[in-house]
Amino acid sequence: SSTVSSSCQAWTRRLWEFVREDSNRVTFAFKVGLAVLLVSLLILVRAPYDIFGTNIIWSILTVAIMFEYTVGATFNRGFNRALGSLLAGVLAIGVGQLALYSGRVAEPIIIGITIFLVGAIISFMKQWPSLVPYEYGFRVILFTYCLIIVSGYRMGNPIRTAMDRLYSIAIGGFVAVLVNVLVFPIWAGEQLHKELVASFNAVAEALEECVKKYLEDEGLAHPEFTKTVMDEFSNEPAYTKCRSTVNSSAKLESLANSAKWEPPHGRFRRFFYPWSEYVKVGAVLRYCAYEVMALHGVLHSEIQAPYTVRITFKSEIEDAVTKAAEVIRDLGKEISNMKRIGDTIRSSLLKGVHNSAERLQRAVVAKALPPTNGDENDDKMSSQLIIGNFEQRK
Amino acid sequence: SSTVSSSCQAWTRRLWEFVREDSNRVTFAFKVGLAVLLVSLLILVRAPYDIFGTNIIWSILTVAIMFEYTVGATFNRGFNRALGSLLAGVLAIGVGQLALYSGRVAEPIIIGITIFLVGAIISFMKQWPSLVPYEYGFRVILFTYCLIIVSGYRMGNPIRTAMDRLYSIAIGGFVAVLVNVLVFPIWAGEQLHKELVASFNAVAEALEECVKKYLEDEGLAHPEFTKTVMDEFSNEPAYTKCRSTVNSSAKLESLANSAKWEPPHGRFRRFFYPWSEYVKVGAVLRYCAYEVMALHGVLHSEIQAPYTVRITFKSEIEDAVTKAAEVIRDLGKEISNMKRIGDTIRSSLLKGVHNSAERLQRAVVAKALPPTNGDENDDKMSSQLIIGNFEQRK
Repeated sequence: SSTVSSSCQAWTRRLWEFVREDSNRVTFAFKVGLAVLLVSLLILVRAPYDIFGTNIIWSILTVAIMFEYTVGATFNRGFNRALGSLLAGVLAIGVGQLALYSGRVAEPIIIGITIFLVGAIISFMKQWPSLVPYEYGFRVILFTYCLIIVSGYRMGNPIRTAMDRLYSIAIGGFVAVLVNVLVFPIWAGEQLHKELVASFNAVAEALEECVKKYLEDEGLAHPEFTKTVMDEFSNEPAYTKCRSTVNSSAKLESLANSAKWEPPHGRFRRFFYPWSEYVKVGAVLRYCAYEVMALHGVLHSEIQAPYTVRITFKSEIEDAVTKAAEVIRDLGKEISNMKRIGDTIRSSLLKGVHNSAERLQRAVVAKALPPTNGDENDDKMSSQLIIGNFEQRK
Repeated sequence: SSTVSSSCQAWTRRLWEFVREDSNRVTFAFKVGLAVLLVSLLILVRAPYDIFGTNIIWSILTVAIMFEYTVGATFNRGFNRALGSLLAGVLAIGVGQLALYSGRVAEPIIIGITIFLVGAIISFMKQWPSLVPYEYGFRVILFTYCLIIVSGYRMGNPIRTAMDRLYSIAIGGFVAVLVNVLVFPIWAGEQLHKELVASFNAVAEALEECVKKYLEDEGLAHPEFTKTVMDEFSNEPAYTKCRSTVNSSAKLESLANSAKWEPPHGRFRRFFYPWSEYVKVGAVLRYCAYEVMALHGVLHSEIQAPYTVRITFKSEIEDAVTKAAEVIRDLGKEISNMKRIGDTIRSSLLKGVHNSAERLQRAVVAKALPPTNGDENDDKMSSQLIIGNFEQRK
């Protein structure tokens, strides 16, 4: 039982860590609970139920399907659902009336054919690259069309059915949006901003970590690269963050997509805030991350330059890396504070990187150019140095 | 009108290209149409409608929501929906009975509280990292629970409602799975296999393209990196493919996740086929792609080694790159044919790479080690050479 209680403790600790990492997680959970409760009250309390009837059930479905983590994503999904329902409703009512006038035999045939056509065309369209973000809207069109036209056929009066359903979907959407915006709103724009700043810091940290390991390591205890690449490299936390930066393009894009739907808020007091610039900066930063990942690959590759060679330029390497990481961090800070640092500061930073890079170059040239009549040992070292270098490139 | 007809022609051509690129897109669209048609027939034809009543409408909803591109993804989504509906049904019936026995006043209060709790707990749980893939299942639990318990309260007999709904969901799921598996099935496993092989080729091509551009380019007409990085680099098709390889981790993982649900098929005649190994190989390959992306960054950076320096080792560089690309392509071919090439062939390939790398090293050493009393010109060149090198690293 002591093992049970200790594993229970460990589990509680993990749960606590998970919550503390991002308290929005709990906020979001409570908001969902609140939204479904509010919309259920519409049915549990007698008055609204008497007005809207059983169709009010669709408002619950709408809340459960539409409620998203951020304000922007909820707006976006709501827009998809509203427009999709509207289009499908108009189409279904039109086709339904047409089928009604074409006689008892033709009616189910026309309905069947249009269902097939709508299914096929919608499914084809949603694969078109520029329409992919609206995948959910297409799904809504498909099932709304089928529902309205089929229930119209079996239950008569498709317009009444459609309108009742649209009302209850609108109520559900309204509740979802209200709760999402008014109760501790989680803004996609704010998330995007934080995410990008964190990426800058992650790249800078990973760069420093990589080089530190390279200079520390005796080059003997290398676990096989292909075996460890999938694992977490748990002793390299900065690398893990950098890897998630490398894979962040989809996340940044979807956040920017959501943020476009949000009204001005907090520090972002402008309509048409240029959220897509965040995605572009992220793409450029990712190029830095690729270089760091390439360095990381070197660190864990099997063929390594001997420790003595690596340590030769220790101070120069460390200096260059510190300066480079500083530049990346400062760019991140600029974005974080939404303030340009002066051009003079920036150019002095860049000059610092350039100088320490040159110092490293000079050191390499000095060691790699032994006197032509140099002794065997020196020669061997310089060749190892260059081969070590090449292995990095491959 | 000639501009209209020409833009219409251009549009048709793009559409045709889109279809020819992957004919599965049309197949998928027709399959969706067929599935919704089949399930609609259940309502349009009198007999099944008389048996199941209006609840049969849920089978349409199920098909529209469950039908996915690949067989595995459909199974996966179907499993989520089935298990979610079942759990929610059991829970709702239990709570519903409990609330029923607790009196007229307490009943709506109990129902309201449980709706809030289920909403909050489900929304919290689905954010837990290891449960994220089942996000859809949690959504299903939430809205099924609300629907059953609320309609049970208002319409009486929750068990009957729940059972009818489960039946029609099962029918919808059955139709979706049947059509997906029997009519031109699109297997996630096959897609995963092709995707990985294509990635190997993309990396090899991009490597060659990069170096070719580097040696071709006069180093003068460089568009600014930050301005072009977001565009398509339309004159570098291989790079675009390589970039999508770099961003493919989510795609490979979701395909592997889907493939696990598929029965043995085609060339993959084994239960428990090791699909996760594809993801691992993809991760290792991505490290190669990072290096190529790093090289690509060099190609488009502002500071460039002068053309004369770059061209000095042209033949050695080209030889090394060709050999390296060959190794990558051969690994891709091995996976494509699902056959190991002999160890001797592989080791001779690797030795080829190694030899041409060494030849390049030697050439660099020879040029970078001018006699210590060398003339000014030579010295300047070697320093430029090394600085050019360093810029690549940064």
